[in-house]
Amino acid sequence: MSKKEISSAVIKRLPRYYRYLGELLEDGIERISSNELSEKMRVTASQIRQDLNNFGGFGQQGYGYNVRYLYDEIAKILGMDKKHNMIIIGAGNLGLAIAKYSNFGKRGFIIKALFDKDESLVGKEVGDITVHSMSELSEFIKNNDIEIAALTIPKGDATRIADEVVTYGIRAIWNFAHTDLRLPEHVTVENVHLSDSLMQLSYNIKWQEKE
Amino acid sequence: MSKKEISSAVIKRLPRYYRYLGELLEDGIERISSNELSEKMRVTASQIRQDLNNFGGFGQQGYGYNVRYLYDEIAKILGMDKKHNMIIIGAGNLGLAIAKYSNFGKRGFIIKALFDKDESLVGKEVGDITVHSMSELSEFIKNNDIEIAALTIPKGDATRIADEVVTYGIRAIWNFAHTDLRLPEHVTVENVHLSDSLMQLSYNIKWQEKE
Repeated sequence: MSKKEISSAVIKRLPRYYRYLGELLEDGIERISSNELSEKMRVTASQIRQDLNNFGGFGQQGYGYNVRYLYDEIAKILGMDKKHNMIIIGAGNLGLAIAKYSNFGKRGFIIKALFDKDESLVGKEVGDITVHSMSELSEFIKNNDIEIAALTIPKGDATRIADEVVTYGIRAIWNFAHTDLRLPEHVTVENVHLSDSLMQLSYNIKWQEKE
Repeated sequence: MSKKEISSAVIKRLPRYYRYLGELLEDGIERISSNELSEKMRVTASQIRQDLNNFGGFGQQGYGYNVRYLYDEIAKILGMDKKHNMIIIGAGNLGLAIAKYSNFGKRGFIIKALFDKDESLVGKEVGDITVHSMSELSEFIKNNDIEIAALTIPKGDATRIADEVVTYGIRAIWNFAHTDLRLPEHVTVENVHLSDSLMQLSYNIKWQEKE
């Protein structure tokens, strides 16, 4: 299965399918029709059929989809069939909240360490995760096969730190800083711009009032 | 100015324009050409011209855009010209991190209270924000003109709590729970599904390796 066969629009929908299929498994549901899934996900049954056919998960008349099979296939496409080592740079409130959120680990995103420029935090234990000094970044990333760096730092530091960790071999940046990053093509960036999402809320509140 | 005049695609881009124009103001830049802005934002100059013309912010030959004017116009469209009262339901790590993040207040999103079902947390002070009992939700929302409820609670509770606060008059839900909410048309929901965004990272890491 190659990425080329799957449109980026489908890819963007995959985590949601994965989430719903995971909930079905938790509920002990082994198979589901595209109509039932359509009802649950509020997506048309025909879109579901089109999307899921990308994974060879053809529904059969009177049988429906095999939930476990589709779940596992989507996991493979998403690279969720292997573990990803991650560090969090910025041991402030948000960084600590993410470090303490155990569900990421369950999904294969293993947080190996926190880093902070505040030396007074170095050595602090957060669950089984330790806060390290920024001076250890380079060695730690190389020695622990770290793929992902979450940046929970002020925007003023984000660009410089992102450039730095990329030189140490980081492949992906999970950016919570309120700024856009400019990085080489081979580095993937996923932004979580919380203020932008609040602004969308604000916009919707305003114009719903008007209508 | 009515929403109708502006496409939803433009609306989605507004927070990013707002962020860049804000940075220009911080840097004391009063005017900028669409080419300079294009360079900064990595958007084509023609798209910028099309987008910003929605706000009557016509660039003039040899002058460019008036940064302050555009910033203020976009603020109005986004409803950022008025304050929004917000509560956070769920005083766990993420809820506390959001409560402590002062920039939301600077942007007009005023966090009035935290709520938690754990009575042992009730009365706890987080900066100048107090943790309240869930039994106070209804009265607090009504008496404090609360528009937005941020849900930083497990997915198992999210649906029930969302339905509940909507009956108390909440207009917008900022949903951090790892589930989708089904709410009446007049209620706006903005999801921050952190795990979904990690899965996109995982996908990109996997397929960049392959190519």
